[in-house]
Amino acid sequence: MTSLDPGTRGFYVIAATPFADDGGMDWASTDRLMDFYLEAGVDGITILGIMGEAPKLAPEEAAQFVERVLARVRGRVPVVVGVTSTGFRLMGELARRSVDQGAAGVMVAGNGPLRTDEQIRRYVAGVVEELGPGIPIVLQDYPQSTNVHFSPELLNRLFAEFPGIVMLKHEDAPGLRKISLLRDAEAAHQRRRVSILVGNGGLHLMQELARGADGAMTGFAFPEALVEVIRRWFAGERESAEDLYDAYLPLIRHENQLGLGLALRKETLHHRGIIASPRARAPGPSLDARDREELAHLLRRLERAVERLSAPAPLRMAGE
Amino acid sequence: MTSLDPGTRGFYVIAATPFADDGGMDWASTDRLMDFYLEAGVDGITILGIMGEAPKLAPEEAAQFVERVLARVRGRVPVVVGVTSTGFRLMGELARRSVDQGAAGVMVAGNGPLRTDEQIRRYVAGVVEELGPGIPIVLQDYPQSTNVHFSPELLNRLFAEFPGIVMLKHEDAPGLRKISLLRDAEAAHQRRRVSILVGNGGLHLMQELARGADGAMTGFAFPEALVEVIRRWFAGERESAEDLYDAYLPLIRHENQLGLGLALRKETLHHRGIIASPRARAPGPSLDARDREELAHLLRRLERAVERLSAPAPLRMAGE
Amino acid sequence: MTSLDPGTRGFYVIAATPFADDGGMDWASTDRLMDFYLEAGVDGITILGIMGEAPKLAPEEAAQFVERVLARVRGRVPVVVGVTSTGFRLMGELARRSVDQGAAGVMVAGNGPLRTDEQIRRYVAGVVEELGPGIPIVLQDYPQSTNVHFSPELLNRLFAEFPGIVMLKHEDAPGLRKISLLRDAEAAHQRRRVSILVGNGGLHLMQELARGADGAMTGFAFPEALVEVIRRWFAGERESAEDLYDAYLPLIRHENQLGLGLALRKETLHHRGIIASPRARAPGPSLDARDREELAHLLRRLERAVERLSAPAPLRMAGE
Amino acid sequence: MTSLDPGTRGFYVIAATPFADDGGMDWASTDRLMDFYLEAGVDGITILGIMGEAPKLAPEEAAQFVERVLARVRGRVPVVVGVTSTGFRLMGELARRSVDQGAAGVMVAGNGPLRTDEQIRRYVAGVVEELGPGIPIVLQDYPQSTNVHFSPELLNRLFAEFPGIVMLKHEDAPGLRKISLLRDAEAAHQRRRVSILVGNGGLHLMQELARGADGAMTGFAFPEALVEVIRRWFAGERESAEDLYDAYLPLIRHENQLGLGLALRKETLHHRGIIASPRARAPGPSLDARDREELAHLLRRLERAVERLSAPAPLRMAGE
Repeated sequence: MTSLDPGTRGFYVIAATPFADDGGMDWASTDRLMDFYLEAGVDGITILGIMGEAPKLAPEEAAQFVERVLARVRGRVPVVVGVTSTGFRLMGELARRSVDQGAAGVMVAGNGPLRTDEQIRRYVAGVVEELGPGIPIVLQDYPQSTNVHFSPELLNRLFAEFPGIVMLKHEDAPGLRKISLLRDAEAAHQRRRVSILVGNGGLHLMQELARGADGAMTGFAFPEALVEVIRRWFAGERESAEDLYDAYLPLIRHENQLGLGLALRKETLHHRGIIASPRARAPGPSLDARDREELAHLLRRLERAVERLSAPAPLRMAGE
Repeated sequence: MTSLDPGTRGFYVIAATPFADDGGMDWASTDRLMDFYLEAGVDGITILGIMGEAPKLAPEEAAQFVERVLARVRGRVPVVVGVTSTGFRLMGELARRSVDQGAAGVMVAGNGPLRTDEQIRRYVAGVVEELGPGIPIVLQDYPQSTNVHFSPELLNRLFAEFPGIVMLKHEDAPGLRKISLLRDAEAAHQRRRVSILVGNGGLHLMQELARGADGAMTGFAFPEALVEVIRRWFAGERESAEDLYDAYLPLIRHENQLGLGLALRKETLHHRGIIASPRARAPGPSLDARDREELAHLLRRLERAVERLSAPAPLRMAGE
Repeated sequence: MTSLDPGTRGFYVIAATPFADDGGMDWASTDRLMDFYLEAGVDGITILGIMGEAPKLAPEEAAQFVERVLARVRGRVPVVVGVTSTGFRLMGELARRSVDQGAAGVMVAGNGPLRTDEQIRRYVAGVVEELGPGIPIVLQDYPQSTNVHFSPELLNRLFAEFPGIVMLKHEDAPGLRKISLLRDAEAAHQRRRVSILVGNGGLHLMQELARGADGAMTGFAFPEALVEVIRRWFAGERESAEDLYDAYLPLIRHENQLGLGLALRKETLHHRGIIASPRARAPGPSLDARDREELAHLLRRLERAVERLSAPAPLRMAGE
Repeated sequence: MTSLDPGTRGFYVIAATPFADDGGMDWASTDRLMDFYLEAGVDGITILGIMGEAPKLAPEEAAQFVERVLARVRGRVPVVVGVTSTGFRLMGELARRSVDQGAAGVMVAGNGPLRTDEQIRRYVAGVVEELGPGIPIVLQDYPQSTNVHFSPELLNRLFAEFPGIVMLKHEDAPGLRKISLLRDAEAAHQRRRVSILVGNGGLHLMQELARGADGAMTGFAFPEALVEVIRRWFAGERESAEDLYDAYLPLIRHENQLGLGLALRKETLHHRGIIASPRARAPGPSLDARDREELAHLLRRLERAVERLSAPAPLRMAGE
């Protein structure tokens, strides 16, 4: 249940990192957030991703956060730890420590001025060498944020060359055809299978599932909804999955504002009573009164849209 | 009716440029496309934008296209001509010729390595100087494509300094707060009003209208839908406007794939029987069988969603 | 003498495009400039490159410029025509017309959002298909300006796949190791040889020659100097070549200011009495009084440095 | 002597961070490097800059490095500590700790997606707020590496608004006119003076001094040479300063290869017997046999060029 493998399927949530209003770590909210994710039925939890504000944590804060999360989750679902760093040494230390404590794997994105296929390949080879054979790797393909572009051809090559990579976090955009090309390579037995979970807030999730994605890994503030969408999809209830998805699309689309999305998600988690403060560490985005009213309007419309579907209600709309 | 001014409101469509299968200009489809836009009730037509594949036209083709469109539209709605060019001289020639023939104004985007506010200001000053006082200017703010970033502060300054700029084509993303800041400056009487039409395929249209946008300017392949959404909004029927909008959102979101959007729109216009060939000039995007089936699936769901609303049906779903 | 082939060696000058003070084409200066280049002993002339302000010329101006240059040069050295365009159709038309009139080949750079090796390969394949088999191609690798990155691995693949590419205009930076890797591939008989001429104003020319470059293709305003440096190098007089090079290095380095270089070169060519006006078309760089005095200071020091070497004097320091 | 103020002038060296061959900190080489810089006559030492591989150090390593350097330098020259971080909290902690231990100030570069003047201003305001009034700030303007562009207009505004900024590390390129514009603003009494030290390896140092720079801050591997160039310049011996500079220009130019420069400098410092290992932490550049021979050739030519000038010899060419 807590392992990560090429057949992994479902919804992995990208966890926020809760801070107190003074910017310090908020451990009580951290526990509550993990409980909420588990209650929502997520298949896995990814911490210290870009949305987790990892680059703003001191290494000792990151290590404590990993420890706290693992202790709270107690192996009920796999926990993946984002370890991307400007230096391999720091990356390796966090990765080894996390896996020793029970993490199911680590996630690594491209970092630095990597332009050509060969530059990226050398970078990934260096990552793999630093991490060694025992640590399952999720490769994050997120060019909008990293400016590192993995082509399907390169990914095929990397998956064939490095068996430690068990999953692709796919968030290239536009990226639909990429999924098809990756699955075509497997269908033609050109290389072993990898799990593909999509990101970008799930903005194209139904198309991605139809093209062969195994699910999503994203920080959407209603994880229970995407859990259910993906469950229905793999149960063969495709139209009903898409109906439910479409009800959430206005919010999914709204959260998908580069940079601002983090603030919107923390605000929604705060509004739902899960984390004590919506604060992000500086420098970071924050919402003003208009932003909050705009979000509240979308949440009200969401409630009505979900009612119309007689869909399972969200776990909680606001803290009570 | 055919002028462009700071109070302009409604839906301006960004016109595709129809090509024959051999890549030559397709004048019959051009006429049919203009008739379709007028029948859809658009408030204006913008030609030779980025979506109009302007940089792939020879200047004489561009001039002929302008002439053909103006002759077909016959002043029933304003026609705006995209004139952005790497050289001011070529820009000026196309602009003057277009306005002489009846265009209501021209649209100009940032172009080249413009990084700082002052570099952008000097560029805009050069544009204004080249165009002279008689040509209404739509300033296009589209950083995802141009890598030129107009801050609200800079826009306020440009609008105050250059009265020839009558409209902002806003497609910064995320860009919601920018609209609020621009309208705040007007409310505080810091400068005259400008019209703001939003782009980005209308992906955040309802939020943008709520923050003060005057409408949209985009190449969405169902212009009649956005015409109606915007009509309802300004008629005070806000929830019904948003219900209609949400029915179209899955397609709006799907079209909004950078680069691929053009091919999806041409395919839809072709599917609806309006243009003879969905072809874009090389190098350009094209759809494969999976892409087309995916689009067809979304169009089928769109039909059902619209029916459920008892909304006005699209003019035509497929050519008949 | 006027053909372009994989063994081509020497100094090709990137020609400026002379304009009159009113921005129109200056044909008399065009003739004078070509005469000057021939007198300087260049091995070839490249026109309508990025430095030639090609994107600011109307297609008919570009065609006339090609015609004028070819008529003046009369086959004494090969003329290469830059044909990079946002559309393949326009590129093909200029290329065919130029070669029909006597051009030795065309130069093409990456253009548009080409990020991965495979995207670039498809672009080059499209270029080759449009141009057909009869037109020798110089592939320009200039990432600082185009943001298109050709890896050595990709270049090896392109040279093997497309025999029409006879030369690489190399101006990646840093790019020294790239030249070694390309020559290593030839030494290992992995593919046929290509000519490599380096750009970037010749800023690393001696290192590039030592690693296997065949010469340079750049717009340095003292072409006679680089002609002589390269001549000495291939005559085995390596230290004397480098001594001469070092005397010119302060100016080479000064010209190598991205964007401003064009204005500095036109100013120097004007100062040397070769072109009537130093003007670039708008929007473009221009020099102020401080810039000109700074340049004049460097030219005075250059004269003294060259004297100290008892080197062949530049053809002309200032117009007389 | 150890303070940093708006009148600061001279040569500040950007210190490398010496590692052992196993990637650990090398404290003996750190001491030797500081002794070497002091012996070379530098006016200040900047540690933990981009060239100092700061982002690859764990915070505790960075803190130890600061402590070690300050203990070795013992206040003989000002020490500036690079503190740029993705999070203000981490930045503030390192800055306060460094100044408490005796650092003369901190250096901060733009970081993250800062595009418009106003976005940059808000970032700098956040930095200033986090650091508080007591810490002198060097603002690093290095767009080639950070993609953050400070216009002269914005810098004037920042210097006027934030008195804590006492120095500009200028390494925009091309950036000559920027220095003139900044000094013009001071000459017109538009704002207080700031010290300007230039970077980019000193590639345009003589022009920058002529336009008003106060010196250089760069990691050139022969700091004693730039110390002497700048000393002569301010002593009024301008031609002799430039003659000496030109002798070093081939190496200055060679080191100025983005990314590779660090490896070349560490190799030279190693070759000169100052640091035990030329190693950079992964992922980072490294030299192969050709790179080393190429560098050795340039060092041999440098020795001869310096002899011809009867210039003061470098302190050491190779370790003895």
